Amino acid sequence: MKQVSIGFLGCGNIGGGVWRLLSEMHDELVLRHGIDVCVRRVLVKDIPEALALNAGKGLDVPREILTEKAGDVTGDPQVDIVCEFMGGEQPAARFMLDALENGKTVITANKVALALNWAQLQAAAERTGAGLWYEASVGGVIPVIRVLNTNLEADRIDRVMGIINGTTNYILTRMSQEGRDYAEVLEEAQKLGLAEPNPEADVEGMDAAYKLSILASLAFHGRVTYQKVYREGISSISAMDIAFGREMGYTLKLLAIAKKDGNVVEVRVHPTFLPHAHPLARVDGSLNAIFIHGAYCRDMMLQGRGAGDMPTASAICGDIVSAASGDRPFYPSFRNTVEDDPSFEFTNDWTTRYYIRLSAVDEAGVLTRLAACFSQENVSIASMMQKTAAKDGLVQLVFITHPASEQAVRRAIGHMDGKICRLERMIRVEE
Amino acid sequence: MKQVSIGFLGCGNIGGGVWRLLSEMHDELVLRHGIDVCVRRVLVKDIPEALALNAGKGLDVPREILTEKAGDVTGDPQVDIVCEFMGGEQPAARFMLDALENGKTVITANKVALALNWAQLQAAAERTGAGLWYEASVGGVIPVIRVLNTNLEADRIDRVMGIINGTTNYILTRMSQEGRDYAEVLEEAQKLGLAEPNPEADVEGMDAAYKLSILASLAFHGRVTYQKVYREGISSISAMDIAFGREMGYTLKLLAIAKKDGNVVEVRVHPTFLPHAHPLARVDGSLNAIFIHGAYCRDMMLQGRGAGDMPTASAICGDIVSAASGDRPFYPSFRNTVEDDPSFEFTNDWTTRYYIRLSAVDEAGVLTRLAACFSQENVSIASMMQKTAAKDGLVQLVFITHPASEQAVRRAIGHMDGKICRLERMIRVEE
Repeated sequence: MKQVSIGFLGCGNIGGGVWRLLSEMHDELVLRHGIDVCVRRVLVKDIPEALALNAGKGLDVPREILTEKAGDVTGDPQVDIVCEFMGGEQPAARFMLDALENGKTVITANKVALALNWAQLQAAAERTGAGLWYEASVGGVIPVIRVLNTNLEADRIDRVMGIINGTTNYILTRMSQEGRDYAEVLEEAQKLGLAEPNPEADVEGMDAAYKLSILASLAFHGRVTYQKVYREGISSISAMDIAFGREMGYTLKLLAIAKKDGNVVEVRVHPTFLPHAHPLARVDGSLNAIFIHGAYCRDMMLQGRGAGDMPTASAICGDIVSAASGDRPFYPSFRNTVEDDPSFEFTNDWTTRYYIRLSAVDEAGVLTRLAACFSQENVSIASMMQKTAAKDGLVQLVFITHPASEQAVRRAIGHMDGKICRLERMIRVEE
Repeated sequence: MKQVSIGFLGCGNIGGGVWRLLSEMHDELVLRHGIDVCVRRVLVKDIPEALALNAGKGLDVPREILTEKAGDVTGDPQVDIVCEFMGGEQPAARFMLDALENGKTVITANKVALALNWAQLQAAAERTGAGLWYEASVGGVIPVIRVLNTNLEADRIDRVMGIINGTTNYILTRMSQEGRDYAEVLEEAQKLGLAEPNPEADVEGMDAAYKLSILASLAFHGRVTYQKVYREGISSISAMDIAFGREMGYTLKLLAIAKKDGNVVEVRVHPTFLPHAHPLARVDGSLNAIFIHGAYCRDMMLQGRGAGDMPTASAICGDIVSAASGDRPFYPSFRNTVEDDPSFEFTNDWTTRYYIRLSAVDEAGVLTRLAACFSQENVSIASMMQKTAAKDGLVQLVFITHPASEQAVRRAIGHMDGKICRLERMIRVEE
């Protein structure tokens, strides 16, 4: 039997879940894999506070393995595997680096620390022969990291599209199903613990963008940094646009999209309309789902719990078993550099359909003048809907375009006369 | 750079796909993984015929690497990895065994040969240190084998449910969408090459049962043989039952179901009604999808192309890269025995809902007498629908039960008076 000693960096929600899973499954893991997994050291911010919290949750983490010094975990010669559950970029990334430099395998669910420090972490791991595992960093229990790293390694992936932020998906689902406004649903989500007190990282799309930079790097076999991801959040989405879109056959999701065509790469996170029948349109609430398309595999979809202590713990403990069994770690096969892959041409001029809502004066000839602006830029309109005048005397005009260049659409809108109309909202449409 | 020499057993549809993928991706695999993959030997039944077929498909397999003797592949000292594409149990299993005994890693998509000869194949692999890989054996490109073998190894899986036969899913989808009868749709599927000239293995559920025996064994960490799988096909499904079910809110699928509760295990393949909103109900045509539930991961769904030359080739080549990179092969962590796991209690008395259609004489009091038969066995009725008399003067009565024991339902039907009714169809309902 193989002894496997684990150190925890942090012991909050996820750490507590991993502790519980390892306790409950300890004997089963001995039987299945011949590994005797034991947690030896746990870093916490404040020992008395941690003892009280653990007692409240019924976690029997012994007093003597708690420490307030990271070095007691990352430098403990008895610890084989360091699991990081702190969240946030620093000091998590620094502690992981210390552990790797001490030859310890690191397992993390921390997309921020990984996305921003991947090159340094991987270089340290390769130098000392330690493993670096991060299945839980994207999509919770969804096995997307391993699938991209193993199953699809002989394929040529050209598209990854996903709902990879549970908070925004919950908010949009509620807004959509109940016709309610953003601020109201956000407040409710915060009360339920489904949104952070400071929700910015989720609702402005940063969380999804970190995850997309990881997925795109693996899928395209070249580094795509966070900085390259175009990003729009959901905080300015109105119940009106969700309702209009629904009427025209679309469901709104915060989508993370990565596409590669030849060397041209686009990576973007933004609210996106999907046809009601699209598989991702049906992924509601706190579920996550990732759609992958490749030259040979064609379309594939992976769906599951993107968050939650026990699903995330399941993914982390899957990594523990793999690391303890000597599996090849998740070192991606791209050059180990902080730069974006020099062979990639990043574009901000993608082609997609657009939902464009304008407020316009209610006069004859207005529509003709607006249509001329679109046609001037070769933007072709697939459908149009006019909503009767609101109290300000303006009508709402909604256009859905045929596939068009983003920059052409922006230019077309730029041509429009500000005296007759105003752009209220532009939302991209995927199919 | 690492030279990797491949031998093919067979070169039909799938083999041709793997040849094409390895040719097109050769240089990319060198760059990504430092492996130079080369096919050295190809077993075919008849060389002149194979040359003509390959020429027709534009496959440039050189004459000099073709052979009609299996030993030229399985015994070639230059071959590292043997890929088996023959299908059928024998001689495929014997050839794979030869290859493993010669220390060659075997990669197969052959669920029949694997399900029926797993123990011997694995024993040979372990004896000689060869790898045994079979990602493509279930669900085509869907990564379910690796996910069960790695990501979920620390979890306790209690349910696997899947649409894992594309032919029957295509037939049921067409029957359902177009209201057509089985025989007509089958004939069309055969013309399109989506069903075999002898469709028995697909339509009678054997193919799904082989695959389920593999999935259940991995999910439950104990051997579940093919013989233990209860099996009913789709050949006696009528357009009428599909239409009645749809009216009551259900979609019909051929489902493979494995459940484990404590030590009690049920494994079954049969036509199954699912609520329209169930994620598996929406998996149409030749798509496959597998739903997994575990104590910690909760629900997960994997969806993709279950068949087709290139998707299957993608999965096989993923295995080639893994094997060539020294990954841990798919040796499951159960005792290496041909027997079913002795700790499992297999049951044929599962609890589920039932759709029961009876022809009954159109007389007062009949319903009361039938209802009494159900209640005598504690089978509770959730809903009932009566369809007006057909030409034979009989009415169609459709019952949906609350969850009930299979054996109790069968006894209840046994109590019914043959003079007033006849059982037309019983279909299980999952939720």
